[in-house]
Amino acid sequence: MTKPVDDKEAERHRAKMAKRKSVQDEEVAGKTYEKGLLIVHTGTGKGKSTAAFGLALRMIGRGERVGVVQFVKGAWHTAERDALAKFGDQVAWYSMGEGFTWETQDLARDIAAAERAWAKAVELTNDDSFGLVILDELNIALRYDYLPLDEVIATLKARRPRLHVVVTGRNAKPDLIEAADLVTDMTLVKHHFAAGVKAQPGIEF
Amino acid sequence: MTKPVDDKEAERHRAKMAKRKSVQDEEVAGKTYEKGLLIVHTGTGKGKSTAAFGLALRMIGRGERVGVVQFVKGAWHTAERDALAKFGDQVAWYSMGEGFTWETQDLARDIAAAERAWAKAVELTNDDSFGLVILDELNIALRYDYLPLDEVIATLKARRPRLHVVVTGRNAKPDLIEAADLVTDMTLVKHHFAAGVKAQPGIEF
Repeated sequence: MTKPVDDKEAERHRAKMAKRKSVQDEEVAGKTYEKGLLIVHTGTGKGKSTAAFGLALRMIGRGERVGVVQFVKGAWHTAERDALAKFGDQVAWYSMGEGFTWETQDLARDIAAAERAWAKAVELTNDDSFGLVILDELNIALRYDYLPLDEVIATLKARRPRLHVVVTGRNAKPDLIEAADLVTDMTLVKHHFAAGVKAQPGIEF
Repeated sequence: MTKPVDDKEAERHRAKMAKRKSVQDEEVAGKTYEKGLLIVHTGTGKGKSTAAFGLALRMIGRGERVGVVQFVKGAWHTAERDALAKFGDQVAWYSMGEGFTWETQDLARDIAAAERAWAKAVELTNDDSFGLVILDELNIALRYDYLPLDEVIATLKARRPRLHVVVTGRNAKPDLIEAADLVTDMTLVKHHFAAGVKAQPGIEF
């Protein structure tokens, strides 16, 4: 499989990469301060919560404590929860949702569940033992107006300076995107459900 | 903060969510088989590798073994690697890259590193103790034509039927997207680097 490399090609490559490195070095030098980030993972593709849990893993590897509040998916992410249990007290996990909203069909109950979850979120963001707090599917609770958007954004903006917060879920509100430091839209390009493949343990749940 | 709910509003909500549930139930019933997926995380946004490691966590929680081959980022993801070490033999991690290509500026060395990484990838995909294999930044090696695309795709398509593979990195080749079951484009909406915030432990590395 080895591919021959001639001198001219090698030199072209070296010059291109040297230029790329100088751009990269300059970019890094331009960043001067650290701060806790408000991160939003939104979009219709997969990976919003999954990337948040990947970030949890990274923070754990750095010795930080991680808090998780699940706003909607009551029974989901049990596999991640089981795995993260291995880290003991370094992870605090709260499943506060009542299941999907289309499972409950009870607006008053949904709102009450969202309010309990938000109270827990406020508690964790105020607890300075946490380096990262994940508010999983908070966007869903905001989308259905189960929580007052202004109050949620004001609380998140007023958080401790070094605390990172990740908010996940489709249809992030424009005002939340405006308030965030880092926003990624997980865009669906292709999905195996369309080909009749069913949800599988380890992938979807 | 409690929001009053009148009967009409509650009924509208119930009807809407009942309809949503019936659509969801029908969708689930239409999916009939399980298979190992070829998953691609691409795009310029953050979360491509992070979501792959989040998926690793989920597979671990399901009792599966996970293999990781890093094609390019030699020194990166050390925090995730440290955290995953907690799971012992359940995770096998191989950093085969020589650092970023713009760090090495040596085409022959980059190609040799990519070929070694690919050989390790083939070894792991053939080892039926693994339920998931992550080929981190393979897209970069393919983009620079360090590896023969046709051979890589043919090998991935011919993998064991129950093996899940995740390929990460920007600029996924169209033929790879064509071959994949699930493709997500992590789209950059907003990045804190633009506001002068520097890379931070636990977030970027």
